[in-house]
Amino acid sequence: MNQLTIEPLTAESFAPYGNVIETLGAHHYPINQGYAERFHDLARVDCLSYGGEVVVSLFRGQPRPLPIAIQLMERHPLGSQAFYPLQNRDWLVVVTDNVRDTGGFRAFRASGKQGVNYHRNIWHHPLLVLDANAEFLIIDRKGPGLNLEEVELAEPLFLDP
Amino acid sequence: MNQLTIEPLTAESFAPYGNVIETLGAHHYPINQGYAERFHDLARVDCLSYGGEVVVSLFRGQPRPLPIAIQLMERHPLGSQAFYPLQNRDWLVVVTDNVRDTGGFRAFRASGKQGVNYHRNIWHHPLLVLDANAEFLIIDRKGPGLNLEEVELAEPLFLDP
Repeated sequence: MNQLTIEPLTAESFAPYGNVIETLGAHHYPINQGYAERFHDLARVDCLSYGGEVVVSLFRGQPRPLPIAIQLMERHPLGSQAFYPLQNRDWLVVVTDNVRDTGGFRAFRASGKQGVNYHRNIWHHPLLVLDANAEFLIIDRKGPGLNLEEVELAEPLFLDP
Repeated sequence: MNQLTIEPLTAESFAPYGNVIETLGAHHYPINQGYAERFHDLARVDCLSYGGEVVVSLFRGQPRPLPIAIQLMERHPLGSQAFYPLQNRDWLVVVTDNVRDTGGFRAFRASGKQGVNYHRNIWHHPLLVLDANAEFLIIDRKGPGLNLEEVELAEPLFLDP
């Protein structure tokens, strides 16, 4: 059984695939007469090519059976896609540069205070949550053109969180 | 002392000012092989005029002394601004069509499962939270041009949540 090692999610380790949306290490400054701090510009939103628009949505995810079988990967050739968790609970992210070589797949454990923004065209697994009814805020693209590619792996990888 | 009545936040009551970002009443459909439900396209993101870009930020807000004095209102003439709470706790929203007539000001109590997206140019009070270190995800505009107008009220209004 091919098991993926789960790494902690950091901005550096995730940089080839997208942004980690978190206060840690972010540029920040006081606003609102000192009653709020702004951690500014944490994700590269890239949804406008070919007539696209940015849309805000909510996802409600359900956990998969353990160990989690990584069988289907997807990418969005026309737009970035950001996920931010709405409960302070860990979740999982699986990405790769090359969907044909499972040796290069990487799995990350994100905290409940970490969102991710997949850059356009980055292969990733659909949402992986560890709790029932886990909600996320999503920022992605709406518009003309085919913005979803899916690939089924010949042999699944497994994740044991 | 001029006290503002606090209404519950609903999509209908808030429609003149912007969108309520919530699953209630939203168009939704299953995705991810049935492991997630997508509540789709909940806010009109309007940040691109005059060379603007959409940015994702985090705000960490602090509560103000009670009763809350509403003294300074602001609007963003070049872009919409969305707020979504990252803890399941109520927060407050104050808006108006006409910042010169305090009789038309409206206050709403949002739940911890309700975000709002202020439409471009809508007068609103800066973030009002009821708990220390209350975090929000923000979707607003970055770019050239002056995107902030502020008006100080001659006489404050008060909110007693």
